[in-house]
Amino acid sequence: MTRIDDLPIRDELRGKSPYGAPQLDVPVRLNTNENPYPLPEPLVRRIAERVTDAARLLNRYPDRDAVELRTELARYLTRTGGHPVTTEQVWAANGSNEVIQQLLQTFGGPGRHALGFEPSYSMHGLISRGTGTGWTSGPRNDDFTIDVEAARAAIAEQRPDVVFICSPNNPTGTAVEADTVLALYDAAQAARSDGAGALVVVDEAYGEFSHRPSLLPLIEGRPNLVVSRTMSKAFGAAGLRLGYLAADPAVVDAVQLVRLPYHLSSVTQATALAALEHTDTLLKYVEQLKAERDRLVTELRAAGCQVVDSDANFVQFGLFEDAHATWQAILDHGVLVRDNGVPGWLRVTAGTPAENDAFLDAVRAVLKENKR
Amino acid sequence: MTRIDDLPIRDELRGKSPYGAPQLDVPVRLNTNENPYPLPEPLVRRIAERVTDAARLLNRYPDRDAVELRTELARYLTRTGGHPVTTEQVWAANGSNEVIQQLLQTFGGPGRHALGFEPSYSMHGLISRGTGTGWTSGPRNDDFTIDVEAARAAIAEQRPDVVFICSPNNPTGTAVEADTVLALYDAAQAARSDGAGALVVVDEAYGEFSHRPSLLPLIEGRPNLVVSRTMSKAFGAAGLRLGYLAADPAVVDAVQLVRLPYHLSSVTQATALAALEHTDTLLKYVEQLKAERDRLVTELRAAGCQVVDSDANFVQFGLFEDAHATWQAILDHGVLVRDNGVPGWLRVTAGTPAENDAFLDAVRAVLKENKR
Repeated sequence: MTRIDDLPIRDELRGKSPYGAPQLDVPVRLNTNENPYPLPEPLVRRIAERVTDAARLLNRYPDRDAVELRTELARYLTRTGGHPVTTEQVWAANGSNEVIQQLLQTFGGPGRHALGFEPSYSMHGLISRGTGTGWTSGPRNDDFTIDVEAARAAIAEQRPDVVFICSPNNPTGTAVEADTVLALYDAAQAARSDGAGALVVVDEAYGEFSHRPSLLPLIEGRPNLVVSRTMSKAFGAAGLRLGYLAADPAVVDAVQLVRLPYHLSSVTQATALAALEHTDTLLKYVEQLKAERDRLVTELRAAGCQVVDSDANFVQFGLFEDAHATWQAILDHGVLVRDNGVPGWLRVTAGTPAENDAFLDAVRAVLKENKR
Repeated sequence: MTRIDDLPIRDELRGKSPYGAPQLDVPVRLNTNENPYPLPEPLVRRIAERVTDAARLLNRYPDRDAVELRTELARYLTRTGGHPVTTEQVWAANGSNEVIQQLLQTFGGPGRHALGFEPSYSMHGLISRGTGTGWTSGPRNDDFTIDVEAARAAIAEQRPDVVFICSPNNPTGTAVEADTVLALYDAAQAARSDGAGALVVVDEAYGEFSHRPSLLPLIEGRPNLVVSRTMSKAFGAAGLRLGYLAADPAVVDAVQLVRLPYHLSSVTQATALAALEHTDTLLKYVEQLKAERDRLVTELRAAGCQVVDSDANFVQFGLFEDAHATWQAILDHGVLVRDNGVPGWLRVTAGTPAENDAFLDAVRAVLKENKR
């Protein structure tokens, strides 16, 4: 039998494992920040209608530039993001992962490097490596906010080509202040003596769940600032794989130099357009999830846990001497949460009220067992 | 207004244009090798059913490993490819372009290089560059077959990490003999003194249209040989973006080190599975297209054109002193064909009988005008 290491793969891939949360068959799964509410049945029917129309033209390539979809995404951002956005400022791809990959192929790549602030969304570093982009992590404070002065110093010293700022941050739930983004943006531009500046990517995958307004208005007058988004969370469509970005139209032109032609299928475009017709209903679910997220924070604290303030649809809680053992103990109670490898901490996704009750019961039971 | 060149993009992207055929509004479009037959209505209904089921679970991530889909693709290959293939030997992605990108991220990339035989599918070179992989082109004979001795010499000299062999070749329609593939495979392995060998990718995007059997059986006992395929052409599903590969299971394991997690949406998986249920009907369309392709070859020759023998759903014809002027003249008659930049030659996709008649009439008219 041939093993991976017998193949002529790249040296840096040797001994690596594929990224991905364990997929376990457990009654309550609160480990991947999915939206627990299935799409409403009228939307399911609308998807079937739109996909039927798309299927009748499936022998033809999709709209390569996804103009209708980008127009509706721009309309959604204009309505909810606090800043007017045009079709020309929006780009879409198969999940925000592909958006990030296209950005790194355009602005990163061999001989360039990216900087993030870990713990954060681990795909930023993994896609950097996958595109041949160097990767380093800057500092955070003990409360998981970004240490602005240390971050500016790291940017000045390392002169990155791409800077990732995740807000709300995954896995900690921490929102980033607009002033912090601006300070880092300015530092990232100043650090590049060639005058070209560096690209700053604000990853707002969980933006709709925040207590604060979107950072979207910061793109105004800042051609090197990109806000990335996804329909996986707020739109309850993790299965759809639809990520998008808003930025200066020149950034949208630039990623088209590296995008695979016809990257976004007709069925994906049709399904996303159907979901965008039902925005109001879906955003009501978001409000319910925000309330449940706040309840998780309150009740976990009441149970004696430390909890990081959360602006996302998940909550980071601790502190555990052995977080992995606690993860296993909660799993033994039938609830799957996520061990992101942040020492002492675990992450739980806000589920339905019943799922969250099951989780809280499990945590209380585990804490009680540990006290014995 | 910010221009692309004001942004900190990679130097090698400066001045480049996005890949893609011109999309013109013309009565007869025979320029992108699409299947002219819309999916049959029973299949459209089945897609709607399967997508409805998928939409009810759309809040959850898709099957990350697409096991059901890969199983059905393996079954299809086993039935039609002359060689038994298992689920573990198949991988799928968003179009064969993404398959190729994943292969190059795994086996190519910075410091490595790929070799193809141009004129061929231009995305091989473009995706090489997009992944930081070097690119060179080996020689072809005047009849567009691969010059085996020259190719072996090029491989021995350049020691590529990845070799692309497109069969039937796009845009020439030329099938590659199994013996040629084997000679190049052996040369590619021998050229690597480190013993690791080189990856050989046989691109069979148009394999179902060939007069000859698939090259799929060659994967047996050759862990560095990959056959890539697509549902865009034979399955009449260019809008679906579903490419796949068959190879040693170790290759499938290896590409999972670089694939973006959950890259293949639930709606894409559902639609592809529906299409695979209707394989028999779709392959009947392929037989019709093969007959029409053969008719195009015969009638173009009768009209006085030179025509390259074709095993694909398109035909390369010439020779024209100014191929682009001829392309424009045919367009003026309402028929869009493709100028792939091969000096003297144009490419026409086999359409419906009526479309092909319109094309042949246009060519005859243009040739008559030129004689005046």
